[in-house]
Amino acid sequence: MIPVTEGKHVARIVCFGEILIRLSAPGRELMLQTPRLESHVGGAEANVAVSLARLGHEARAVSVLPDNALAHGALGELRRWGVDTRHVAFGAGRMGLYFLTPGAGQRPADVLYDRAHSAFALAAPEAIDWGAALAGADWLHVSGVTPAVSVNGAGAALRAMKAARAAGVKVSCDANFRARLWAARGGDPKPVLDALFAEADLAFAEARDIALVAGERAESSEAAAQIAFARYPHLQRIAHTERKVISADHHELSGVSVTRAGAARTRAHAVAGIVDRIGGGDAFAAGLLHGLVSGADEQAMLDFAVAAACLKHYIPGDFNLATADDVAFYLSNSGSDVRR
Amino acid sequence: MIPVTEGKHVARIVCFGEILIRLSAPGRELMLQTPRLESHVGGAEANVAVSLARLGHEARAVSVLPDNALAHGALGELRRWGVDTRHVAFGAGRMGLYFLTPGAGQRPADVLYDRAHSAFALAAPEAIDWGAALAGADWLHVSGVTPAVSVNGAGAALRAMKAARAAGVKVSCDANFRARLWAARGGDPKPVLDALFAEADLAFAEARDIALVAGERAESSEAAAQIAFARYPHLQRIAHTERKVISADHHELSGVSVTRAGAARTRAHAVAGIVDRIGGGDAFAAGLLHGLVSGADEQAMLDFAVAAACLKHYIPGDFNLATADDVAFYLSNSGSDVRR
Amino acid sequence: MIPVTEGKHVARIVCFGEILIRLSAPGRELMLQTPRLESHVGGAEANVAVSLARLGHEARAVSVLPDNALAHGALGELRRWGVDTRHVAFGAGRMGLYFLTPGAGQRPADVLYDRAHSAFALAAPEAIDWGAALAGADWLHVSGVTPAVSVNGAGAALRAMKAARAAGVKVSCDANFRARLWAARGGDPKPVLDALFAEADLAFAEARDIALVAGERAESSEAAAQIAFARYPHLQRIAHTERKVISADHHELSGVSVTRAGAARTRAHAVAGIVDRIGGGDAFAAGLLHGLVSGADEQAMLDFAVAAACLKHYIPGDFNLATADDVAFYLSNSGSDVRR
Amino acid sequence: MIPVTEGKHVARIVCFGEILIRLSAPGRELMLQTPRLESHVGGAEANVAVSLARLGHEARAVSVLPDNALAHGALGELRRWGVDTRHVAFGAGRMGLYFLTPGAGQRPADVLYDRAHSAFALAAPEAIDWGAALAGADWLHVSGVTPAVSVNGAGAALRAMKAARAAGVKVSCDANFRARLWAARGGDPKPVLDALFAEADLAFAEARDIALVAGERAESSEAAAQIAFARYPHLQRIAHTERKVISADHHELSGVSVTRAGAARTRAHAVAGIVDRIGGGDAFAAGLLHGLVSGADEQAMLDFAVAAACLKHYIPGDFNLATADDVAFYLSNSGSDVRR
Amino acid sequence: MIPVTEGKHVARIVCFGEILIRLSAPGRELMLQTPRLESHVGGAEANVAVSLARLGHEARAVSVLPDNALAHGALGELRRWGVDTRHVAFGAGRMGLYFLTPGAGQRPADVLYDRAHSAFALAAPEAIDWGAALAGADWLHVSGVTPAVSVNGAGAALRAMKAARAAGVKVSCDANFRARLWAARGGDPKPVLDALFAEADLAFAEARDIALVAGERAESSEAAAQIAFARYPHLQRIAHTERKVISADHHELSGVSVTRAGAARTRAHAVAGIVDRIGGGDAFAAGLLHGLVSGADEQAMLDFAVAAACLKHYIPGDFNLATADDVAFYLSNSGSDVRR
Amino acid sequence: MIPVTEGKHVARIVCFGEILIRLSAPGRELMLQTPRLESHVGGAEANVAVSLARLGHEARAVSVLPDNALAHGALGELRRWGVDTRHVAFGAGRMGLYFLTPGAGQRPADVLYDRAHSAFALAAPEAIDWGAALAGADWLHVSGVTPAVSVNGAGAALRAMKAARAAGVKVSCDANFRARLWAARGGDPKPVLDALFAEADLAFAEARDIALVAGERAESSEAAAQIAFARYPHLQRIAHTERKVISADHHELSGVSVTRAGAARTRAHAVAGIVDRIGGGDAFAAGLLHGLVSGADEQAMLDFAVAAACLKHYIPGDFNLATADDVAFYLSNSGSDVRR
Repeated sequence: MIPVTEGKHVARIVCFGEILIRLSAPGRELMLQTPRLESHVGGAEANVAVSLARLGHEARAVSVLPDNALAHGALGELRRWGVDTRHVAFGAGRMGLYFLTPGAGQRPADVLYDRAHSAFALAAPEAIDWGAALAGADWLHVSGVTPAVSVNGAGAALRAMKAARAAGVKVSCDANFRARLWAARGGDPKPVLDALFAEADLAFAEARDIALVAGERAESSEAAAQIAFARYPHLQRIAHTERKVISADHHELSGVSVTRAGAARTRAHAVAGIVDRIGGGDAFAAGLLHGLVSGADEQAMLDFAVAAACLKHYIPGDFNLATADDVAFYLSNSGSDVRR
Repeated sequence: MIPVTEGKHVARIVCFGEILIRLSAPGRELMLQTPRLESHVGGAEANVAVSLARLGHEARAVSVLPDNALAHGALGELRRWGVDTRHVAFGAGRMGLYFLTPGAGQRPADVLYDRAHSAFALAAPEAIDWGAALAGADWLHVSGVTPAVSVNGAGAALRAMKAARAAGVKVSCDANFRARLWAARGGDPKPVLDALFAEADLAFAEARDIALVAGERAESSEAAAQIAFARYPHLQRIAHTERKVISADHHELSGVSVTRAGAARTRAHAVAGIVDRIGGGDAFAAGLLHGLVSGADEQAMLDFAVAAACLKHYIPGDFNLATADDVAFYLSNSGSDVRR
Repeated sequence: MIPVTEGKHVARIVCFGEILIRLSAPGRELMLQTPRLESHVGGAEANVAVSLARLGHEARAVSVLPDNALAHGALGELRRWGVDTRHVAFGAGRMGLYFLTPGAGQRPADVLYDRAHSAFALAAPEAIDWGAALAGADWLHVSGVTPAVSVNGAGAALRAMKAARAAGVKVSCDANFRARLWAARGGDPKPVLDALFAEADLAFAEARDIALVAGERAESSEAAAQIAFARYPHLQRIAHTERKVISADHHELSGVSVTRAGAARTRAHAVAGIVDRIGGGDAFAAGLLHGLVSGADEQAMLDFAVAAACLKHYIPGDFNLATADDVAFYLSNSGSDVRR
Repeated sequence: MIPVTEGKHVARIVCFGEILIRLSAPGRELMLQTPRLESHVGGAEANVAVSLARLGHEARAVSVLPDNALAHGALGELRRWGVDTRHVAFGAGRMGLYFLTPGAGQRPADVLYDRAHSAFALAAPEAIDWGAALAGADWLHVSGVTPAVSVNGAGAALRAMKAARAAGVKVSCDANFRARLWAARGGDPKPVLDALFAEADLAFAEARDIALVAGERAESSEAAAQIAFARYPHLQRIAHTERKVISADHHELSGVSVTRAGAARTRAHAVAGIVDRIGGGDAFAAGLLHGLVSGADEQAMLDFAVAAACLKHYIPGDFNLATADDVAFYLSNSGSDVRR
Repeated sequence: MIPVTEGKHVARIVCFGEILIRLSAPGRELMLQTPRLESHVGGAEANVAVSLARLGHEARAVSVLPDNALAHGALGELRRWGVDTRHVAFGAGRMGLYFLTPGAGQRPADVLYDRAHSAFALAAPEAIDWGAALAGADWLHVSGVTPAVSVNGAGAALRAMKAARAAGVKVSCDANFRARLWAARGGDPKPVLDALFAEADLAFAEARDIALVAGERAESSEAAAQIAFARYPHLQRIAHTERKVISADHHELSGVSVTRAGAARTRAHAVAGIVDRIGGGDAFAAGLLHGLVSGADEQAMLDFAVAAACLKHYIPGDFNLATADDVAFYLSNSGSDVRR
Repeated sequence: MIPVTEGKHVARIVCFGEILIRLSAPGRELMLQTPRLESHVGGAEANVAVSLARLGHEARAVSVLPDNALAHGALGELRRWGVDTRHVAFGAGRMGLYFLTPGAGQRPADVLYDRAHSAFALAAPEAIDWGAALAGADWLHVSGVTPAVSVNGAGAALRAMKAARAAGVKVSCDANFRARLWAARGGDPKPVLDALFAEADLAFAEARDIALVAGERAESSEAAAQIAFARYPHLQRIAHTERKVISADHHELSGVSVTRAGAARTRAHAVAGIVDRIGGGDAFAAGLLHGLVSGADEQAMLDFAVAAACLKHYIPGDFNLATADDVAFYLSNSGSDVRR
């Protein structure tokens, strides 16, 4: 297991992407079934930033937002959980929103994106001062959502990754392929994502993601990883979760990690009585980055990352608020349901 | 599966019965454990009307209500979901209420009826202008709750069914036998329900319901149906769900439909993580009527009806708000827990 | 006072404009101070439609909305209060939103519009079948918000008014000038609004609105009205409220109505303990239309309209849910604070 | 001022009447505007009992209720505030309810009674064992609501008062005339209330109440009291509040008390920012009874009673939860808005 | 099964211990994730008192509390459920609190005690007048929490037990060993608990509790009981539950009871869909005491106690509000999920 | 008026004192009238820090807290509003709490402190590394609450002020005299507060505070200030608000500031419709510090400070969340109740 020593292994990790506000129907209600809505702050990369801050790291969120009450509310929420928001830029456009109807049993959750024309989507790639934003950083984390948002987004993501590489900052990229965003945006995702993967040291990607960017299908995660390693010389590690859905409330989750040296897998974790499923993948990414910067061995790192992803399902909202101690307790717990 | 083509197969269906307001304890609380209550609108036939409107049909609710804020609130809720309320009559008496303490685990739900002396129970059978209410209708739907409410109710239900038959409107009747209502009302249910079944083209009834009205017990749904077909010449189809209760949160549900030509059955559907169990039978009835008017084949119609009933369990309140698209997704879903 | 006789004076009034969802901070909180939001449905013309339906008229809302859960939720809310939504068209684009931080004391309310790129703003003027939408109508009501939303909106509003005039349907137009919407949209409002006023039989407009469209300033409402009457031959009546703000919770409200024959004014009504100030002007417009179609005399009509506007301030949400009986009670009440 | 000495002047006071559950719209919403309701326990005599218990007395609630979850919830609430509920009887019938839409500004509150056919209304006058219920009591308090509920209620109230008088227990009676209840019940209130007043030592009644029971009008409270004193030899004191309504949120309140020896009056108390107006009269009655059993002088007793009534307006629900210390602080407060 | 005959077997049971207020995060939120908290009243012995009152007994809570609004709120809640609070003493110190973050799935619940320096912990053993508090009592119930709270607590518990024994009142003691409280308090628990067990007729204790107090380990409940019976001559019965935790939402529960004559066990009860796990052991203790005073046979008593404990898990808050009828229904239920 | 130029006049201000969690009854309820509580973060100096951060300054909160979920929740809330919490130390002890029952009308608010034995009260004066905490600071703000909490607190406050003075950091001190805290703590406040005032450049103090520390009474604020200026050579300015309470909802507020050069006063501001009165004085202090560091003239600074204090009354919670733009709008507003 990852040794959790307070104050050690603190990394500086910069997470670049769109910050969103989620508006969800409360309880198990349908959207607008009653007039009440609950807000949460999310966005794949912001979720990673919060997870990392909760795991003890210095996480910075970098983004472009409108200068209005919604955006400042979102930034306040990130600061609350310990994320540094001083490198967020402001620009013209809306606050990106999404409306979530949480699922129940065999009724799936439903997501209605309302993020078109956001300040992030409209921002020029030059909106961010990457010299300042990356100062002193160990890692930059981006995801495939950003290029899917707009052509500007694609430019911004690539610019960020190149700036990081130039500055000796390692780069992780979560494929996070969203067909519906690409359909709305137009354009061919392949060359765009291919260029991004070329800059990554670590990719969160399944075999189908590799097939999309590399144009070559593989039967297994391991085979897909070899394709990617051959194509992207900087790439050192590919990881992802495998999820089996029994109902909206009950999943099974496991993790896979492949390096040029070999592969690791975790056992399948039963995830029953799910509270909030959004952000599980981001919790995994943050957990793996935590392990990497902590110098954990491959299996411990992967176990930690999957455990973090599992715990996320029991926490309302998009953020994984579990601490390293919570994850360690989860991994070692043998039957306690109350800590007192 | 039932082909869902927008604008096609739109039927006009009239649902006659008492509209109720449910007052429930929130969360998993006991009644009045805290001072907050949540209101929903219900009543077996209103539930069917809302389901049908959500499935794309022109549903009319016909009832008698007091002319007060509670009744107008209930009517507004029906209109909200697309039900035509213009044929509701107003009369002296109370608004029918029921208090629900939802169950949890092995603690069963508890229903406290407070519907005695309601405007519906007191209304004369002539309170409704059936010429207007049935104008242009394809189906009339009634249930055994109405005659159980009062002698006037029994007269009103029979009058409605005879008016429909005279006007060439098909008639469905849900047995919905409620021993406690009959005990409170007094009188022998057998001849009353027998007269109702005699007017029905379609009956929602289990073998024990048939035994009650026909005075003859059968071992199976099929055998019971044959008894009913012999006794009621107008009757063409009998259908019902079978429910196995594992806990208040976990059931198994399947459906049976018998015509003079043969029987159909569905597989058992696991219904775990139940949100609200009230109205499942009404969702089934509406689903079957939807299939009938859509010209679906017997098995597709029954699968659709049971799927609709299952989905109801994941929606708060008495109404099944699932659309035809939701039901189709449920029937074809192979592991997706978020639609985005 | 306007004689309220049930079933009499029922007019068919078509209200055309954008339907919005309001998301407000609960209680007296600032936006996102806590994560909870409350939703309401609004939009100037929808507000008028609901008021008219509550006053007993057949109100139709005509609009263009996206075909998603938010829009259907909004339509359901209009139906709930008795508005006919069958002539709403669906098109590409977002649901128009606005975020409201209600004021308190000397802290003013704050509105953050998020309605750019809405389906309504993007819709071609031909999106509505005005032949069907106006069938049988007595009045068409539009407002200056619609041309301010987009060039398409301007075209749609003018097209609607011309279609009404051609069909012998009277037209009312509420100036509702919104400098910030015009600033965002671009273009000169003067010729656009001037063309609209030219089609109106009744205008809700203050002297400053007349000055804007007619290019001529007047000292008083009466003088402004004479300018307008001279310029717009169809115009028969101009009316508006006068509001004095003591605090966010305490206003004074009066009404003015000018015809070619003369002017009427009401006393100043104290409006203390305000619950929700949004929609007061729309409640006034609906009250005046109610009086007009009811054949009330000028003073009674205006008193009724101002009373309706006052009552709106005591009702949460954008809609005035007061009935004609509520307004009559308000006007005649001499000290009762509980009706029982 | 009344000397508040803990443990002194503790009286045993029996309050007989119907216990009700109030269901109110939350905030300033209209009834069923949103689906949430808030419950409170009330009923004029139960309100008096809770006030007295909070003022340090041994208060007993005597009533007849159905043996169901609603009634037991109501009894639990009375016990919570220190009222002895052991003499409540159970019988057939419903739980009495009332639906309250609280007012705001110039929008009056609205009460919808739903108490017909309650267990209390149906109970035979013999349902209560008055020997046990009055054992050791100093006072019996009844009100004119009870005879207005049903003929049985009239019998029960009279039977209770006669039993008290026979047992040397003093009797207070609050006129609480409710025209709508009498209209629904039928019968002439005059002889019924006249018989009740004949048994009272203390009556809470305005001049119009005296006029009703004695058939003789008086110009002033004092003159009305003299009519009553002449007619009812047992009667020693008549008291009531005078209320001026400026808006639903703002009243003025004063008190009058007349004995055979003379009259006392209080200053007018401004009651602004009202939270909940229901139960103000009951708080006054309890306050006066408290003064009487405490041996306070006439003016101090009346000041205390009006102060208690004023404080009630600032407390949610039907009960006055103010303690004697709270009332004393109110009467002596010179500008403190926070006690810390 | 225990014959539930109303009015029979009513015992007077005195429960002595600290009354606490629980402040919990709502829903499945983390502590202070949103600003809302929910309060409940608890404390092991108060929980037993409420359970017993709900099962029909005369339960008295005896404790020491500060004379402030929190304490009076807690006492009101006990009275609400039928517990006699007249023997509670008031003293200097705080109200004991605990903060609960309920668990979900594999995320365990978290308890943060904030009970140091409470009035109960500071109270001298002589604070309670045991002559009055035990008057007429059949049983005294204490627990190992009280001596763990403070040295004064240890003295008070022993004093209470000795007073009971002297007065011929039977004594039950729940070990309720809390390592963290002992660590905070200091001192060796062994002699303290040993002295307490020496006064008990009935002990709720597992083998590990016996090992702690008797200094001797046993392999089984039966063997541990024999050790205890040898050491404590007054002790007649030892009982406890066995709990297997599958997740925070899903346990298995069974019961064991050992007397000098032999042992009884129940089947394992699946406890899925847990609503609130706190207070399960107290519900068991109350259930067993109910059986004992009802003269049920050993197996029926134990089945009842475990069933009561299971039902507690489906009720929010610390108290088991299940009635004897609810428990009987649970034990005999064969598939009903709605009682109507 | 203070020129609000973004990015200018940004000061670094360190606020040292205890951070508290407030638990309040919701709405206008009494404490525990219903089970729901709302939490806010407060504490006089934390309130000042948040106000300053909202006004654009770099505010640091320095304190000592327990290392538990409550404390981390409080710190997160401070970070959310932009306060730097990195210099907070952790130590043994509880989280300081206070329970607030908000007032209504003539019912005053009620505060129940539960802050004894807090980590802050127990902390040694050396717990804070003032070299680090004051690095780069312009001002240190402390208050008289800290010495009133404990002897350690008195030592810590004095140590902080001396460290500031030594480092050339200016010092402000809010008298905030709390008789009840001093009574509980014991000891004579005079010499303790006298020593503190001796280190202050700016004091927030009324004449009665000066009388307490200087032992000399004065008739006016100006005279009191001269006494203080004579006694404390470092002191340059004394300021305070004057509050007139009409009801819990309605105050009048004005400000006074006295320097060695002269005095300034503001007009009386009506503060009606109060939402939350806690923290008004802290908002005033922050407003004045803002003016001082912005180089505003005496009158503008004082007007700004009183306006900030007024606005606080319209914002829920302990913090003044008003921005400089909000304050400027308040001061210049001539009748707008909605900003849109």
